[in-house]
Formats: sequence, C-alpha cells, structure tokens
Amino acid sequence: MDRIVRVAVNGYGVIGKRVADAVRAQDDMTLVGVADISTDWRTRVLQAKGVAFFAGTPEAGDALQAAGQQSAGGLSDLLREADVIVDCTPKHVAAENVPIYRERGLKFILQGGEKHEVTGHSFVAEANFETAVGRDATRVVSCNTTATVRTLIALKRAGLLKRARGTLLRRATDPWESHLGGIMNTLVPEPEIPSHQGPDAQTVDPDLDVVTMAVKVPETVAHLHYWAVQMTRPTEKEAVLEAFRGSSRILLMKDDHGLVALNTVKELMADLGRSRNDLYEVALWADMLTVQGDELFYAYMVDNQAIVIPETIDAIRALSGRETSGPRSIEKTDTALGIGGGLFAAPSPRPAEGSIEANQRP
Amino acid sequence: MDRIVRVAVNGYGVIGKRVADAVRAQDDMTLVGVADISTDWRTRVLQAKGVAFFAGTPEAGDALQAAGQQSAGGLSDLLREADVIVDCTPKHVAAENVPIYRERGLKFILQGGEKHEVTGHSFVAEANFETAVGRDATRVVSCNTTATVRTLIALKRAGLLKRARGTLLRRATDPWESHLGGIMNTLVPEPEIPSHQGPDAQTVDPDLDVVTMAVKVPETVAHLHYWAVQMTRPTEKEAVLEAFRGSSRILLMKDDHGLVALNTVKELMADLGRSRNDLYEVALWADMLTVQGDELFYAYMVDNQAIVIPETIDAIRALSGRETSGPRSIEKTDTALGIGGGLFAAPSPRPAEGSIEANQRP
Repeated sequence: MDRIVRVAVNGYGVIGKRVADAVRAQDDMTLVGVADISTDWRTRVLQAKGVAFFAGTPEAGDALQAAGQQSAGGLSDLLREADVIVDCTPKHVAAENVPIYRERGLKFILQGGEKHEVTGHSFVAEANFETAVGRDATRVVSCNTTATVRTLIALKRAGLLKRARGTLLRRATDPWESHLGGIMNTLVPEPEIPSHQGPDAQTVDPDLDVVTMAVKVPETVAHLHYWAVQMTRPTEKEAVLEAFRGSSRILLMKDDHGLVALNTVKELMADLGRSRNDLYEVALWADMLTVQGDELFYAYMVDNQAIVIPETIDAIRALSGRETSGPRSIEKTDTALGIGGGLFAAPSPRPAEGSIEANQRP
Repeated sequence: MDRIVRVAVNGYGVIGKRVADAVRAQDDMTLVGVADISTDWRTRVLQAKGVAFFAGTPEAGDALQAAGQQSAGGLSDLLREADVIVDCTPKHVAAENVPIYRERGLKFILQGGEKHEVTGHSFVAEANFETAVGRDATRVVSCNTTATVRTLIALKRAGLLKRARGTLLRRATDPWESHLGGIMNTLVPEPEIPSHQGPDAQTVDPDLDVVTMAVKVPETVAHLHYWAVQMTRPTEKEAVLEAFRGSSRILLMKDDHGLVALNTVKELMADLGRSRNDLYEVALWADMLTVQGDELFYAYMVDNQAIVIPETIDAIRALSGRETSGPRSIEKTDTALGIGGGLFAAPSPRPAEGSIEANQRP
C-alpha cells in the first residue's frame, strides 16, 4: 500500500475544524496536527479529541502556556511532520504564510479567500482534479464558486451549457459568530456587477461564460443561488436532471420531500447524523427546475461551511500524488464523508482516528 | 373646471390607508369615505382625521356600536356617494365585492391580489393608462409586477428590450404585522419557476418576454429585484440610464450617495418627510448597473407598501375620464405626492383636506 499522506492544518476556524475531522475520516491520510492562535474553547476541544495542537505564533505559544494549556510545539514543528499543509487561516493571512511553506518545499492548499495568483491553480474536484496532480500548491475556491462550478461543469459535460447568469443570496455571517458581519431586517447588494464569483469560476475553467450578481441577506443558514442558463439547444427537463445526476455532489430534492427552505434541508442533515449537520453537496430543487426551449432556470442551496470540505480532501490527494484519478479520489472522499448515497443516505464513516468516540473505547 | 371625482375606499389596510391619504392630496378628486370591518386603533385614526367611516359589513356595524364608535353608515351608503371605488380589501375578498359594484354601475379598481380576469384590464400608468380611460374597472397590479413593468417598459420604449430574466427577493411580511408570514433566519424559495410576476406583467403588456423566480427573505423593509436583460443590440450604459431617466417613477442612486442597503433608502425617505416614509419610486443602483455587449444587469428596491399608490391615483383618473392623457395624470399625481424632483427632493404637498393638520387650524 502507498504511504499514508501526512496532513497538517493551519487555522482551526469554520473550515479548518471540518478539514481536520474530514482528514481523520480518510484511510489514506493522517492528521499530524493543527496549528492556531486561539487559546479558548476551540483548542480545548482539539485536545479532548487527542489531536496534536501547535501554537500558530510565538505569542500564541506564550498565551497557551499562561492559560495552562499544553502545545506540541510551534508552527515550524508542525510543518516538519507534514507532506501537505492545508491553510485555513483567515483571508489574506494565508497568503503571508506561503513563503514559509515554499521555503520548506511543503505542498500547500489555500482556501477561496486568497487570490488565484498566489497558487496559480484553482481547484474544484469534478472540474480539474487531474491538473492539480503533483503540483506544489492549489487553491480550493470559495463555497459560492465551488457550487457554481460543480453545477455548470455538469451542464458543460452534457454539452448543454452556453452561458449562465446567476443571482447569489449570501448568508450574512457564519452561525457560530456573534461579532462579525451580521445584518438584521435589510438586504445589502454587493456594490459591483459582476460580483467576484463569476470571474472566480473562470479561474477553474476559463471557458465558462458566467456572470454573477450577489446580495447579502439577513440569515446564517446557507447561501441560495438562482440561475438563468442559456443552453446550446432546446432540450427536455429530464436531460438536465440527468446531467446533474452525473455528480455525486449534487442532490436533487423533490416537492414531496417537503424540503421547502434552507432550514429544513439543514434539519435533514442533522437527522441523518451528518457531522456538524453539514451539507457537503449542492442541494437543488428538482421540481422547481424549469426548461423553456433553450433556457434553463433553477435554484439550489449552498452550505458555505461544508461544501469545500470534500474538495479539500481531494486536493490533498491530488497534490500528494496519492491518487491520480479524479473520479477515484472523489469516490473515496464521498464514502468517508457519507456522500453519494442520495438525499436520504445516513453516513456511516469509520470512527475518526483519535475521535472522542474512539478515545473513550476501552 | 371639471367635476371633482368622488372616491370611496373599501378596506383600510396597508394599501387602503395610503390610497385614502393620496386621494386627499389631489385637487381633482375627493375622498367621500372609507369602509372597513375593523374597530380598533386603525378606524380611530380615520375618525381623528375627520374622514367619514362606514361599516364594511353589518356585523362590523354592530361591533362599532358596541365599541362606542360612530359610523357614517354601511357600505351601501358609502357606495351611493362615490363615482369610483378603490377596493383594498384582502386578496380574494375584493373579487367577491365585484358583483355589488357592478350592480350599482360603479366604476371600481382592484389591487394586484385579484386575478386579471376579474376586471379584464391590468394597469401600470406608464404602460397603458390610455387603454383604461373610461373603462368600468381595472386592476392595479402588485408591487413586484408594477416595478417590473415600469422598468421594462422604459427599456422597451428606448428600443432596447429583447427579454428579461429576474430574481425577486420578497420581503417576508409587512412591517406593521406580527401575526402573519414572518420567517426568521432562513430563505424560502417559491416552489415554481416561473413565479407569477412574469406572467402577471404580461397582463399589462403581452409583448414582454419576461421570466421571474422568487424567494422569500427574512426582512420586512422592501423587495429587491435582480435582472439579467438581453437587449436588442449592444449599447452603452449611458443609453440605458437615459431610458430609465425617462420615467419620473424610477430613481437612480449613485455610489457616493451611500445608499448601500434597503434600510438606508428607507431612512432617506423618512428624512425627506415622505408620508409614512414611503418610497413610491423604483430605487435603482445606477453605478452597479452593468452593460456587457448586448446584455444588461441591474438591481433595484421596491417598497411594496407604496409603489402602487401613485398608480392607483392615476387609475382613478383614467376610469373616471377626469384625465385622458397618461403623462398629464402622472405629472399631477407626482406633484401631489412629492415624486419627480429627483432622489433628494423633499415633498411639499398641499395639506390634505381633512388632515389632522388642517383640522387643527383655527
């Protein structure tokens, strides 16, 4: 068997904590540790899970010591143990870390807050896994861009996509936050059209003819996208649905499921037992989807905390060369995260190494 | 001078109260009275304003009496005094009132909650005032449809409109309500595409090629529309803005105005001294508006409580024959309501007849 890929995570926020758990759920990679600068409840959970925790900065190391918490060392110590580092630090911080990674010859993955130019490659597994194989670095694009590319690539592969025009309703802030970006009882349009997601999708596939408009809405559950697509030809609705069914990461919801709103879909994820109630897929309302001649209209939900997690796992396999086939990596990731069994498949991943559950076994 | 048009309002809710005040602000029509079935704070305000109040049903008459409030009679008494009745009762109630109006040969105006077929004519002043002149009845289309038609007609008149595809963010409920339709921290897509507003716009102008998708959002300030328009030819942004400037009922907002969100625009209306802080116009973000070749993208705000009020006043003039020219009626209505002076023009309507202010004068 090939060597297990040693993965480090720098930044234990909304994305970092999920990447860390998702890495632990794979059988061909191992989490060597997590670095962060916080010293509060978040790092205590990590330690309870038995994950090696490293101080992200010398100051954080001092603060940890003052707080009576242990650390396994500093960022340099963590980097020494890793083949690939996933940088999940806040926007623009990650770009500053890049010279450190490059100096050590360490492969690294950035998230969508950074610019394409920092890595020269932007990643969505179903679109361009193969071009990332063996690279030094890639950028997993943002949640909105990931959903946009996933769906448009499905239409492109079916030969149906001419151009796509989307309106993106962006949730105001992440649900755990009480200190940032929340809005109440108003709507805040992004001041520029096109919004950045359209051009961002073109960093993954320059051939996509896509324009996006975006608006901030006062809720924290998920994003919602509406699309008007010009197809290459008139077709039947069933052909479009078949194109979307070609992706394990697009879920088709029917009216009789009663999944009428964002919060209902999220409740389904909770009931299914998904980790953190996460929706990794694009959840698309299939009965609402409408074809008029050569035009196509549809809407779907994007869980902005979760959708990039499977992509990040695939990106680790691509950079490390642990897998050279996109479909094979996607299948492995999907199986480990409970994706691919359809809308009502309860996940049954192996207990993550070092999980609280595993630790508490006799 | 022509005879003053005698106007009755049936239903004193969100729209009815505004129509009543707007009628009183005109110099060529008079409010003969208002009918409603409520007996609470709402009717007490009417009486404080010196407006004749009629019990909408016999039961409401009994309840009024029991509550120690006076009424000027029943609905029949009100109808006897009017040339035109504006029915602002709740959705579907209005359609049931139609036989009563018809029996009396009374001209009537319904609101957008009713079906087009009930009147056979659907009204937006800038689109089809002239076809309503002298008719027995018309329907002022809903807030969303009014905004859609106003903007698309402006593009059509400039020879720019081929087809329009819109995403409509609908506010959850009216701000005064605590008992109906509110949602929190979620988004609720309308289950069908196209949503009803597109076909509804075609009841005003059957030539409009328009498709709409709609979603309920958790705020109560206003609706927000995003449009992707296919134009007849490539053009400059300035030509599009010029087309919109042709309507006094479309306001163009610039970035340096700082009107970044729905609530900011509403606060501007309050600061200007608009009645009830109402925005009668479509408020469109001009700097955000983007032209790419023969495609056009833009977004605007729709105050769903207010936008149909000027249209209703114009419809009264059209049905009564008091005015046969759309532009002349629009100018009269605009002047009385403080519309047309641009984004920062404070209204200075004459004190409404019977207003609290007028009543309190020596």
